[in-house]
Amino acid sequence: MIPESHEDLLTRPLFTHLATIGPDGRPHVNPIWTIWDGEYLRFTTSTDRRKHLNVLKDPRVSISVNDPDQPYRYLEVRGVVERIEKDPNGDFFDVLAVRYGLEYERPVGDAERRVILVVRPEHVTFQ
Amino acid sequence: MIPESHEDLLTRPLFTHLATIGPDGRPHVNPIWTIWDGEYLRFTTSTDRRKHLNVLKDPRVSISVNDPDQPYRYLEVRGVVERIEKDPNGDFFDVLAVRYGLEYERPVGDAERRVILVVRPEHVTFQ
Repeated sequence: MIPESHEDLLTRPLFTHLATIGPDGRPHVNPIWTIWDGEYLRFTTSTDRRKHLNVLKDPRVSISVNDPDQPYRYLEVRGVVERIEKDPNGDFFDVLAVRYGLEYERPVGDAERRVILVVRPEHVTFQ
Repeated sequence: MIPESHEDLLTRPLFTHLATIGPDGRPHVNPIWTIWDGEYLRFTTSTDRRKHLNVLKDPRVSISVNDPDQPYRYLEVRGVVERIEKDPNGDFFDVLAVRYGLEYERPVGDAERRVILVVRPEHVTFQ
């Protein structure tokens, strides 16, 4: 599904831009951490964040990421939030914090509301 | 509308990520050049590109941009494509190409299909 030529854009700790559909049908988009395991993209968010509320209502999402070293190299991945998992101790948040080099005091302050969005890719565009 | 603290994310030649609504209601998102004049965000695209078809059907868009030097500083601008202007000589494409440092041979190859998406911001989120 993800072209080998562009998989580095998911395996390097690059910020992706996650688009969701807002309550009124408008697109929303924000930078976000992600991690790719070859099958799913995973994101950390909190149950009180807009993007969580958006994907509860419409699980269809898309991400855009480009290469900071060659900005015309980009990858878009459209997919669906297949499930939402709890992260009550912030363990998954910590995996991403380490991946992206964020220093913070464990556990993350809103651990009890932390969730993992698990996205199955369905379509890609790239250049 | 745009907070003074984050306006540099629009005035610096940073790639933004433009989210649109696809024909089936899914979000689409891609990196794109932009230029901000204090009232409108403008984008160049071609009439045969998916994002042009998307905004013809639903003019509601959103962009996300973060600061490569401080990636947790970001700005999201939601707005509406208020009008679409022709750019038959690629003059506007050229303004953006110069802004983003792209070397190419004028006029751009698809000049006859080039259009300018003129977006009025309506809502911002930032951090």
